[in-house]
Amino acid sequence: MANKHIYTNIIGCFIIDNNFKIVDSVKFKDVDDFLNKDKFEEKLIKKFKKVEKLDAKKALHLFKDKKYFSDFYILNLDLAKKRVKESVKFDNLIIQCINNIEELDKVANTLVKRLREWYELYNPEFSHYVNDNEKFAELIAEGKDKKEKESMGADLAKEDLDSIKELAKKVDGLYKSKKKQVEYLERTMKKNTPNIMAVAGITIGAKLIALAGGLKRLIRFPASTVQLLGAEKALFRHLRNKKNVLPPKFGIIHEHALISKVKRAEQGKVARALADKILLAAKIDYFKGEFIGDKLRKGLEERFK
Amino acid sequence: MANKHIYTNIIGCFIIDNNFKIVDSVKFKDVDDFLNKDKFEEKLIKKFKKVEKLDAKKALHLFKDKKYFSDFYILNLDLAKKRVKESVKFDNLIIQCINNIEELDKVANTLVKRLREWYELYNPEFSHYVNDNEKFAELIAEGKDKKEKESMGADLAKEDLDSIKELAKKVDGLYKSKKKQVEYLERTMKKNTPNIMAVAGITIGAKLIALAGGLKRLIRFPASTVQLLGAEKALFRHLRNKKNVLPPKFGIIHEHALISKVKRAEQGKVARALADKILLAAKIDYFKGEFIGDKLRKGLEERFK
Repeated sequence: MANKHIYTNIIGCFIIDNNFKIVDSVKFKDVDDFLNKDKFEEKLIKKFKKVEKLDAKKALHLFKDKKYFSDFYILNLDLAKKRVKESVKFDNLIIQCINNIEELDKVANTLVKRLREWYELYNPEFSHYVNDNEKFAELIAEGKDKKEKESMGADLAKEDLDSIKELAKKVDGLYKSKKKQVEYLERTMKKNTPNIMAVAGITIGAKLIALAGGLKRLIRFPASTVQLLGAEKALFRHLRNKKNVLPPKFGIIHEHALISKVKRAEQGKVARALADKILLAAKIDYFKGEFIGDKLRKGLEERFK
Repeated sequence: MANKHIYTNIIGCFIIDNNFKIVDSVKFKDVDDFLNKDKFEEKLIKKFKKVEKLDAKKALHLFKDKKYFSDFYILNLDLAKKRVKESVKFDNLIIQCINNIEELDKVANTLVKRLREWYELYNPEFSHYVNDNEKFAELIAEGKDKKEKESMGADLAKEDLDSIKELAKKVDGLYKSKKKQVEYLERTMKKNTPNIMAVAGITIGAKLIALAGGLKRLIRFPASTVQLLGAEKALFRHLRNKKNVLPPKFGIIHEHALISKVKRAEQGKVARALADKILLAAKIDYFKGEFIGDKLRKGLEERFK
């Protein structure tokens, strides 16, 4: 049996003899030292040659001394902070971004309704003529709206018009911001989840990650759960009242082009196959496999032509 | 009895003899001519001297001829358009503006919640430190947010941060837009409803006009209705169930500084007096009376000191 034992915890690396006395030690300055503890241990082992690892249980009482407390406190806190910091992954960003995109859309639509109502006091014909909300807000924001001479709208003072235009600019800005966020989401997904993106598309892929609460959680679901993500309400309505309410066939994947293309009777089948392939793609992305999203998508498209 | 009769409708002014034949006429070119019909009638009366007004019932059959139809159609349409155009009053603008202000507020608060959640992945300490939502969005939008070295937040790439900043800019813009709209509302009310503004304040005054559906409708309400505007839900709950539910004491005027200042037991009394004075102010504003809003407000303040 060796005379010396080595024991490492977050505050340092210690050499302990058979009488449980600390013979030598290296204190860690910060968390990084702790994470590189192997180097420090190696040095000490070289110095003392024969040393054995000491069981934590046996070493614990040595560190009950108050002089160690503040070191423990500071370094443990730093470690926790570091772990929190590292816990933010790309899928957290994807979740925030897709939720933001949905909110921007909702918010812009609320405001554009007000814009139409307000603007129609001034120029109802133009509002009637331009059906697209985005275009409508943009044209007014850029001063490209035209009022006919025979318009039924009131002749407003410049100040009154300016207020309407101010709102139009905000609505236009929100629609444009949404586009920017979609572009950012696309770049992020291309880098991190290219397979999901290829099979499910940007929005549906991101929504699935958001609904699951992260990529890691998504890949642990069975395909049938992925198929129904977003249809929880309909599912539980069915479970409560099996006789009268049919189970839902799909959750948010119903927005997928493949499903909307086929006949109603076929949709359940397509949804099942699609969910299966999305899950496969998600697993490949999680384990950083190679890109086969295109193949998966083509396979589905050919099968349900 | 005179030989000649004069009859005017929207297409022109006609002289009709005893045999119901049109002897002479002036056709109106546009709606403005019709609105100045007195001038045209005068001319014809001068020309024929003794003429009497003809009852519309007796003249109607003269205009059943198809040749008049298109004139009737065009000029009546123009008149309707003109009336629609003129129906837009300042209170329509006030209603749109105050509703917009409320929506901007709601929308900005929705988005600022997302901004905090997203930004906290990067810099939770800063979000915790800045409690005010407006300030929070502004500082990030202007790049004045600071991240401590020891932050628990993740180190995000520039592109990821840019997306958060993009959202911050939009939120900041919405808060600033709201301020602009409040300023515009204040100017509009100062010009058109100075008395309401002095007694009720900008927001409450505008909301009352919006709830009533216009200044004209507001002044026709009894003071007790003004007192309860915005508390319809509570009022009808009381009316359905008189025994258990007390009637509300006030509607949206509860936000008024006078009411929030006094004790609970006094609030009903103050609300009654306040609604009374607001209604008086509204009537003065509607009939373009002189400005006594300051006096009304002071009177209330002294009474409920």
